[in-house]
Amino acid sequence: MSYKAPVKDMLFNIEHLARIDQVAQMPGFEDAGLETAQAVLEECARFNEEVVAPLNFEADKAPSSHSGTSVTTSKGFKEAYKQYTEGGWQGLQHPADFGGQGLPKTIGSACGEILNSANLSFALCPLLTDGAIEALLTAGGDELKATYLEKLISGEWTGTMNLTEPQAGSDLAAVRSRAEPQPDGTYKVFGTKIFITYGEHDMADNIVHLVLARVQGAPEGVKGISLFVVPKFMVNQDGSLGDRNDVYCVSIEHKMGIKASPTAVLQYGDHGGAIGYLVGEENRGLEYMFIMMNAARYAVGVQGIAIAERAYQKAVQYAQERVQSRPVDGSVKGAATIIHHPDVRRMLMTMRALTEGCRAMSSVAAAAYDAAHHHPDAEVRKQNQTFYEFMVPLVKGYSTEMSLEATDLGVQVHGGMGFIEETGAAQYYRDAKILTIYEGTSAIQANDLVGRKTARDGGQTAKAIAAQIEATEKELAAGSADAQAVARRLKAARQAFIDVVDFIAAQAKADPNAAYAGSVPYMLLAGNLVAGWQLGRALLVAEKALAGGSNDAGFMKAKIATARFYADHILTRAPGTRDAIVEGADSVMALPMDAF
Amino acid sequence: MSYKAPVKDMLFNIEHLARIDQVAQMPGFEDAGLETAQAVLEECARFNEEVVAPLNFEADKAPSSHSGTSVTTSKGFKEAYKQYTEGGWQGLQHPADFGGQGLPKTIGSACGEILNSANLSFALCPLLTDGAIEALLTAGGDELKATYLEKLISGEWTGTMNLTEPQAGSDLAAVRSRAEPQPDGTYKVFGTKIFITYGEHDMADNIVHLVLARVQGAPEGVKGISLFVVPKFMVNQDGSLGDRNDVYCVSIEHKMGIKASPTAVLQYGDHGGAIGYLVGEENRGLEYMFIMMNAARYAVGVQGIAIAERAYQKAVQYAQERVQSRPVDGSVKGAATIIHHPDVRRMLMTMRALTEGCRAMSSVAAAAYDAAHHHPDAEVRKQNQTFYEFMVPLVKGYSTEMSLEATDLGVQVHGGMGFIEETGAAQYYRDAKILTIYEGTSAIQANDLVGRKTARDGGQTAKAIAAQIEATEKELAAGSADAQAVARRLKAARQAFIDVVDFIAAQAKADPNAAYAGSVPYMLLAGNLVAGWQLGRALLVAEKALAGGSNDAGFMKAKIATARFYADHILTRAPGTRDAIVEGADSVMALPMDAF
Repeated sequence: MSYKAPVKDMLFNIEHLARIDQVAQMPGFEDAGLETAQAVLEECARFNEEVVAPLNFEADKAPSSHSGTSVTTSKGFKEAYKQYTEGGWQGLQHPADFGGQGLPKTIGSACGEILNSANLSFALCPLLTDGAIEALLTAGGDELKATYLEKLISGEWTGTMNLTEPQAGSDLAAVRSRAEPQPDGTYKVFGTKIFITYGEHDMADNIVHLVLARVQGAPEGVKGISLFVVPKFMVNQDGSLGDRNDVYCVSIEHKMGIKASPTAVLQYGDHGGAIGYLVGEENRGLEYMFIMMNAARYAVGVQGIAIAERAYQKAVQYAQERVQSRPVDGSVKGAATIIHHPDVRRMLMTMRALTEGCRAMSSVAAAAYDAAHHHPDAEVRKQNQTFYEFMVPLVKGYSTEMSLEATDLGVQVHGGMGFIEETGAAQYYRDAKILTIYEGTSAIQANDLVGRKTARDGGQTAKAIAAQIEATEKELAAGSADAQAVARRLKAARQAFIDVVDFIAAQAKADPNAAYAGSVPYMLLAGNLVAGWQLGRALLVAEKALAGGSNDAGFMKAKIATARFYADHILTRAPGTRDAIVEGADSVMALPMDAF
Repeated sequence: MSYKAPVKDMLFNIEHLARIDQVAQMPGFEDAGLETAQAVLEECARFNEEVVAPLNFEADKAPSSHSGTSVTTSKGFKEAYKQYTEGGWQGLQHPADFGGQGLPKTIGSACGEILNSANLSFALCPLLTDGAIEALLTAGGDELKATYLEKLISGEWTGTMNLTEPQAGSDLAAVRSRAEPQPDGTYKVFGTKIFITYGEHDMADNIVHLVLARVQGAPEGVKGISLFVVPKFMVNQDGSLGDRNDVYCVSIEHKMGIKASPTAVLQYGDHGGAIGYLVGEENRGLEYMFIMMNAARYAVGVQGIAIAERAYQKAVQYAQERVQSRPVDGSVKGAATIIHHPDVRRMLMTMRALTEGCRAMSSVAAAAYDAAHHHPDAEVRKQNQTFYEFMVPLVKGYSTEMSLEATDLGVQVHGGMGFIEETGAAQYYRDAKILTIYEGTSAIQANDLVGRKTARDGGQTAKAIAAQIEATEKELAAGSADAQAVARRLKAARQAFIDVVDFIAAQAKADPNAAYAGSVPYMLLAGNLVAGWQLGRALLVAEKALAGGSNDAGFMKAKIATARFYADHILTRAPGTRDAIVEGADSVMALPMDAF
């Protein structure tokens, strides 16, 4: 059950695909070069391998528990969280002005993967705090910033996102929680919020809830939603904690996975009203919440990569130990370790290729985020912002869907033992399933990709990315046999992608059912293509390194083999997906609703 | 959480695809026409909907428990099992000579699906008993038959299959349990068996274990394995129960799913030796066990269909009730039930198409089984046996792998609620995962398909099936727009299949790693094709029925829509799978074992 962070692969991506050297030229990131990345990742790996990862399995067996209005987290969580905050990990990507380390996302994202591989349930608490910090940084007034940011960035207090209500899941227009303005400028908040991750726990002194609610008289729908800060404990002028606020945890959910993370039902205002502070302006809550959600969506995509990596490591370990049956090629006389068997290899390679492909994609997306925020040239910032925004639904949607495949294969490699909870592989299978759901289901990601990211600009951004991919294809086509094979698959997948983009752009208004019928397959195709593209780039780097006498030939050869496998076995799915989207839209809606 | 057996769809398959009229012409099946099928299925539906299905959810929460050497099954199981036996359900497909009803598998298989949809954990007990009955019928001597068959067929006693040992999972050559011949012709059996489904329980008076063990001096490997009957309680001359035999349950497993079914570790012979009776001849145990396994493999395939159907029904119900967001086509002004949303429809249609496709495939395979055993013409029997044997890995392998997709989508349709155990959708996701593992993992099914079913006859059987598919394509190509679309997809999938068959047949000896690297994808492609073919045949039947003024136009139209969806969205996966197998074999084994 041990976990070893894939620091080498991360640094490869950071150096060669995300180009940390370019990031380090941007104002504010002068100290964030490859050496920093290496130092941070190695320390991050050590902490998570030794402190956080060992808690994962036991915490699944003995999850968080609820009693009265309080929640006790799993054994060891509180102590590990203390170490986490002491190490300054919460502040990694946040501004130095408020005590953070101000590192680029290019580095922070890799740290996020490590933390999530170590313990998905534990990692959710910092993940939500990050979202709260982003929202306050972007939209909070000076007083809110002064009161909350330092404590959140240090990890002394944690944050939550309160969107969902029983009738309002994907549909935030249905939010009913209400906020009544008070003479002193505060609000009283009333309502019930569900599915609040770490909505109550015992790891920090205070919990800062960011809550969507309607102010009386606000417009209907999403344009009438405001965002509020509602602290669990009121904060005195001197920063010390004051009275208990009127927000209480009434229960936590009994879930299939991520059991150690408490998922709370929070009741606001049953005892006179929870005191809340408006973030930014009234009725702009959704806009601000999207800031948190976009950060969180990217982070959930990284969770997919993280759980896939953990499942992969476990499966490899088992395959290298378990002896069963003679190899079909007769290479071993008697029974051999199952990693000799071609189908076990196919499963492991699939897990590996999916994980490395998505990791490469997420790394490049992180660098774009950094450039979008830190590049001195406004035009470059804009281009990178556009690219990053296109990537968010792919990182979230594709990486999480692929994590279902990877964790399934992880169980499968173990055979019957995989189904026994004591083995640990089953936990990853159960944990992963939330990832395609929370912070926007795969369908919500796909809607975003279809609507805001593709149809709105007539497919322009998508085509610009396709053109970049074509350039990589050309480089590959002039290379080795492996490179050429990858070029061929990339080309077919890109052409499939372009067909789909044209179809989506044309149909989004003309026949929205047709466009949206293909939304999730489109997202998967796009993610598949971009991940395959990044592995194609990685192959070029690796071949060049080998030609230059790399002192890590084993790693470089493995990268080439993985990229080739991805092209042969994953990119080959793309043309069929195209056919289903472009030629199969009508059959999605053909069966009348009442005929199901 | 209610379940409604899809009797209409089953009868459609039984009548039009499996052609029960032809089955009913075979000796012994004279009374087994469509009317019988309908009467049996309706009664089966009633019993399982009312008695067995309601136990499923609670039993998952309060699984079987172990204490000392005994196992207490979940609440209600004992009583339901009593009703199951009183209804004569265990004897459905077994010979009237021993008290069974002697119905064809064409009917029995549909009943099996209903039982498994109602409660997968409960259904496993009868499933294993069926296997034990098959083995005794085929290989047992008269005395064993006389002592055990009636009690097994009535369900008064239950049966188990004891293959697995800690070191012997997929690899039965590694079986170490031993049997010592005694002067009285019995054997003393010693050893540890694991993963024994219903190896101990409180639902029946006796448990008849069928156990693989080695007789001293037997050849090594699978050729030295013999099969024994080891009853939990000895049976006296008059059929009454005698002494407790020396086989004891030492523990049961803590599993991810099918929690209510006790999975036992059985210890044989710790107190002097468990008394066993040889089945058939020494050293032919594996051959006999394959009889049980082939019956069980088909049955596990049906379990895949069953759990997919259950997940589908649950998802449809939720989608028709849950209100969330406005439809993209503006067909409803405000928020609508989520079944209005194209992606929800896509998910439901995928579940439906996969389930109906696999059901049709399993129904046709069952009819072939019946003809293989009952047709008066030896040549016809042989042809059907060959066809059936080709179908077994597809029914088992494809239907169970598709059940993972279906149960995943089932959770996904529910959004966040799907991840909460109280909803029930998560149970299907957890339960389904065992299906691709037990009774031979997907890789074991695929090995069987590659080795015994394809390479051995140079792809002849596979090609003969392809020729039948081509005939259906021609009929479709002359039909409606839907029919033509299906013909086109079927053709592409068939051509992909033929390419793969040629590749597998050519490489199985020349480059076994290459052939077996594509084994599971080949199995999935073949299953996909055959399921799509049967839905193509179904479409032809439905269109003819509509043209003839069917009085069930809604059903027929739904069948057409489902077949079309399958072709557009599932069959389109086939060409990519072909590419991965035929052109991607090398990259499966390219990464050296120690580089993982």
